[in-house]
Parts: sequence; structure tokens; C-alpha cells
Amino acid sequence: MKKTSVTVLGAGSWGTALSMVLGDNGHDVRLWGHKKEQIDSINKTRMNEKYLPNVVLPETVQGYASLPEALKDVKNIVLAVPTKAVREVLYEIQECLNEPVLIIHVSKGIEPDTLKRISEMIKEEMDPRLLDNVVVLSGPSHAEEVSLRHPTTVTVASESLEAAESAQDLFMNQNFRVYTNTDVIGVELGGALKNIIALAAGISDGLGYGDNAKAALITRGLAEIVRLGIKMGANPLTFSGLTGIGDLIVTCTSVHSRNWRAGNMLGKGKDLEEVLSSMGMVVEGVRTTKAAYQLAQHYEVDMPITTALYRVLFENINPKDAVDALMARMKTHEMEETVNILDGRLEEQ
Amino acid sequence: MKKTSVTVLGAGSWGTALSMVLGDNGHDVRLWGHKKEQIDSINKTRMNEKYLPNVVLPETVQGYASLPEALKDVKNIVLAVPTKAVREVLYEIQECLNEPVLIIHVSKGIEPDTLKRISEMIKEEMDPRLLDNVVVLSGPSHAEEVSLRHPTTVTVASESLEAAESAQDLFMNQNFRVYTNTDVIGVELGGALKNIIALAAGISDGLGYGDNAKAALITRGLAEIVRLGIKMGANPLTFSGLTGIGDLIVTCTSVHSRNWRAGNMLGKGKDLEEVLSSMGMVVEGVRTTKAAYQLAQHYEVDMPITTALYRVLFENINPKDAVDALMARMKTHEMEETVNILDGRLEEQ
Repeated sequence: MKKTSVTVLGAGSWGTALSMVLGDNGHDVRLWGHKKEQIDSINKTRMNEKYLPNVVLPETVQGYASLPEALKDVKNIVLAVPTKAVREVLYEIQECLNEPVLIIHVSKGIEPDTLKRISEMIKEEMDPRLLDNVVVLSGPSHAEEVSLRHPTTVTVASESLEAAESAQDLFMNQNFRVYTNTDVIGVELGGALKNIIALAAGISDGLGYGDNAKAALITRGLAEIVRLGIKMGANPLTFSGLTGIGDLIVTCTSVHSRNWRAGNMLGKGKDLEEVLSSMGMVVEGVRTTKAAYQLAQHYEVDMPITTALYRVLFENINPKDAVDALMARMKTHEMEETVNILDGRLEEQ
Repeated sequence: MKKTSVTVLGAGSWGTALSMVLGDNGHDVRLWGHKKEQIDSINKTRMNEKYLPNVVLPETVQGYASLPEALKDVKNIVLAVPTKAVREVLYEIQECLNEPVLIIHVSKGIEPDTLKRISEMIKEEMDPRLLDNVVVLSGPSHAEEVSLRHPTTVTVASESLEAAESAQDLFMNQNFRVYTNTDVIGVELGGALKNIIALAAGISDGLGYGDNAKAALITRGLAEIVRLGIKMGANPLTFSGLTGIGDLIVTCTSVHSRNWRAGNMLGKGKDLEEVLSSMGMVVEGVRTTKAAYQLAQHYEVDMPITTALYRVLFENINPKDAVDALMARMKTHEMEETVNILDGRLEEQ
């Protein structure tokens, strides 16, 4: 593996954990964050105390608060900022670039109203002369575990297999296994939409409904993700992979998941503002629920869990009523809806 | 819903929980077990203290230690005995029957060596004049939660949709939602094979590998179940439903799961005999691993997790070496194997 310079934009838990993987691989890693105080502390203590306490960064990782310095002569960028900040950060970096860059984005969201996936936002915002290629990295990967070098597997997807393989080369090591895929739509949708199901699973747990109910919700949640994904042009098999059920499982069943935690608090009766202010981190699933609700209407896809959650979050419906209605509404014959859509799709081909 | 008599064969935790659902629905429920002492205790205390402590049975549920009494004039049988005991129990009941019965089996296993699914064993053992139809009931459903009337969803599958609907009528209520399916092979395989993955997930957890590794194992586990299922004639969509990923999730991530618990102990360094003797309940996954290993060879399907587990259980391979090898062996391109099989299958059609 050739050593190179990589700039990681975003010094939250995921950006920091990924910078450690790259650092372990011997690359010159520049971890950029917009809060100078945080970056100074990272460089001084060799830890990111707010987001990954007690974990020491490899010496190859250096914090940067200045974008021009972080991006000087760099050809590989890891974009690890919340969906909300993507456009602004892309706007700012272009003044610092001279050459085309490979952008590997690791955010999991969909933009409300425009209904764009993150790779679409990148292509819209970037001057084509400064953009080599776009890759999405996703999969079942809690930052905390990656930072402890626990075994983790992720997928990198790009319309260009070559670009996906470049990203694979940068990140792959013994603990962090990276697999390629060319279904960008499926990988981005799986990563974004699972946060909705994690919120719903958290609500179910918060209501004390148990593992049986949660498993049913996750299963039905995957079905509605697949239905939407098929309409949007994803390969349905992608949703059976690491970035689909893999990520869905880890996000819905792990105490590390902030979306599950937010749902759990909602299920216990707290209101949304209270939950969000107590988290101290971005809960992507809330905005994604709005976007997915709009996508379901746009593509005329039945998404009962997304719809129920939209009503809980934005229309003040009681979480218990919403989950009870979901449990009671399933079709009698298990696979009716997905089968119909798959059949319809095969007929169109 | 018409009230009728139903005999539940097997007074373990699952048989008892299901007898409670039937009892809640007002049926005359006869819960049969072969240990007279246990049955006497159930009738006296109204509880099954060994398997579902602290839960009071509905008055409609009566314990029976005598097979002829339990089966007198009954047309519906729920078969809830371990896979190992299926043939023997079926042999015994036929002396007590005069009329054809509907058998709803709820066991999750495959017979080693013969490689038969349970519905196949039932058809082999039963005199056709005494068998109305066979239904399998499966899904994400820990007995403990069902006995507490937590929301639960299951699937009933039969080659006869009418028979599946009869079973649905018997069990369906507000807390226990029942959906029909006609893919018996897919439902039986999903239920049996997920126990193998649960053992593997337990080992990974016992080794301290974390949620990322477990999610990867579950994802790859589902992929190998699907590969085998397709070769055996199952509908691949079934594995995306309640009896596939739904049951897989609940079994791999819940503390209630005895297969996960057994794996967890193996991961922590205990040996198989020690684990099995400490469980006090049947761990179906151990025998199923043997059967699935034989099925993989018979159908020439690549099943790395099953193979690794077979070696751990029956060839004394170290669990850590087995899991490490699994994490390192995945294909570079995520969906290669499944895609190839699906492509091959479509070409055949």
C-alpha cells in the first residue's frame, strides 16, 4: 500500500475513528475540525476527549483548524460532517484546492426538500475540474469500536469500481475490512434510512415492548427500505448486505447508537426538543425521517414505519399509539407488498 | 373465531407460551408433557415453574401427562418438542388418533444424516389417513415475552394456504399477530439455520469482539442461509421476512436466546460438554450445525460460517481462530456469491 496524505473533514467520533484507521495504515492524516480549541486539545493530548474519550490517536494523525493547511496538496478527502453541513463545507474547501480530489463521504443522511443523496449533493456543489470521483463508505461500524480496533467490516461504493478500490486500499487493514460495491444508490439509502428504523426500534424499547416487537419492526423496516430503494433504482441485494441489514442490526440493537437512544427517550415520554438538546450530537434520523417521508410520497411507496415516525416527530402523535397501530396494520400474507413490487419490476424489464 | 380443542405436545417454554396464546383465545388447551411430576405441578400451581417462572396460565389451559387423554377427539395438534424427539412422539400419538389432525409444528431444526426438515419428518412418520395437513409456525418470538403478552409477530406456512389460515385463526390475537406464507421450505430453513448463526454470534460476543463484528457475522450468515435456501427450492424473499432476518436478529441479539448463550460460553473458553450440561435446555443449533454442514456438502453450497462452527463444535478448532479466519476471508466485492447464484437461478428459469 502506497502511503499518501488524506484529509478527514469533521472531527466528530466517526471522522476521528476513521482517521485512526488511516493513521494505523501509515498515511499522513490531517484531521480537520472547525473548533480551534478542540483541535488544539487533540494535538496536545493526542485524544479527542469529547467524542472518543480515553483513546490515543496514532502519531500519524495531526489535527488542523485551518482548511487551507489541512487541504494543501491533498488528493484524498474523507467527508465526515453531518448531512446538514455538507454543502457549506464543500463550498469552503474548493477555494483551497488546485487539483481534482477523491471524496470519500461517510455521512448517512438525505437532504429534506431537495431529496438528494449525499453523493448527489457533492456532484452538485463541486466544480467538476476539482472532483476526481465520489465514494461512499458505509456499514455496521460504531466509531467507538473502530477506535478500539475491534473487527469491523464496511463497504465502499462508487459508480467507478476503480475509485472504490482506491478507497479500499486507503482503509483496508487487519481489523478494518473493506469491500467494494458499485450500487451507490443502495449503499447511501441503506445507511440513511436505517436511522429511521433505529428511532422506531428505540421507541419500541422505550415503551418496554421487548425483543419480539423490535425484531418485527426491524424486519418490516427493512421491507419498506427495499420497496423505496427499488423504486429509486437501487439493487435490492445491496439491502441484504453490510450496508443494509448489517448496519440496520447494529444501529437498532446497540447501546452505542445515538438514533436508538433518541428513540428510546421518546418512547419513555420525553419530547423531541428535550431529547435533541440532551444528546449533544447530531441525530441524523430526525431530518432523514422528514426526507424519507417526502420520498415515499414522491415515489408513491407505502412506508408505514417512516410515516408513523414522521407523525410522532413532527405532528405530535403519541409514540405508543403510533407503534400499536403499526403492529396491527401488517398485511395478512407476509410478503404481499414486496413481492408485488418485485413482480412489477421484473415485468417492466 | 370458533372455539375448539387444541393439544400442545411439549411443555417446555415455547409449548407453554403458545398454550397460553391459545388459552387466551378461549380454546380448550391440553398441554401435554411426558414428566408426570411437572404436569401435576402445572395443574396445581397454574405455573410452569422450570420453564416460565412466575407466569400464571389461563384457566383454559390444562396439563396432561397421558397422551390418550390429551388427544381424545382433538383435531388440532401443536408439536413443540425438540427435533430429536419428533419421530418418537409422532409414532406414539398415532395410536391415540381416530381422525385426521392438523399438525402445527413449532420446532426449529433439521435432522442430521437424513437431512430432513420437520414437515418432511411429519409426512414420513404419519399415516396419511391420520394427517389432515402440516403447518410450520416460526418467527421472532422468545417464549418469555410471549408469556408476558408482549407484542409478537409470527408466520404460519403450509403448502395449503387454507391450512395456514386455520392455524392463523387459532393463534391470532391482539398481542400475537400471525401472518401466512406458503413457502414451507424457506420458513423451516430460516428457523433452523438461524440457530447456527446465533451460536457464532455468541462466540464472537464471548470473545469480546463487539457489535460491528457481530453485525458482519449476522449479515454473512444470512447470505449463506439464502444461498442454501435457493438451492433447496425456497423463495429467497422469505429470508427477508419475519422467519428469516426477523428471527435471526432476535436470536443473535437477545439475552433470552439459548443458542446465543451457548455460543457466548464457548467464546469464553468453555468446552461443548460443559456448556450443554450447564444449559438444562436443548440447544438445537448444535445438531443443526451438523445437519447444515452436511447439507452444504450435499448441495455444494459455500457456507463458511456453518463450516467454521462445525469445526469448533465437532473438531475442536479454537473458536478465536475460527472467527478470525471468517473475518479475513470475505470476498473483495461484497455480493459476488449471492449474485452469482441468483443469476444462475434466473438463467435456469
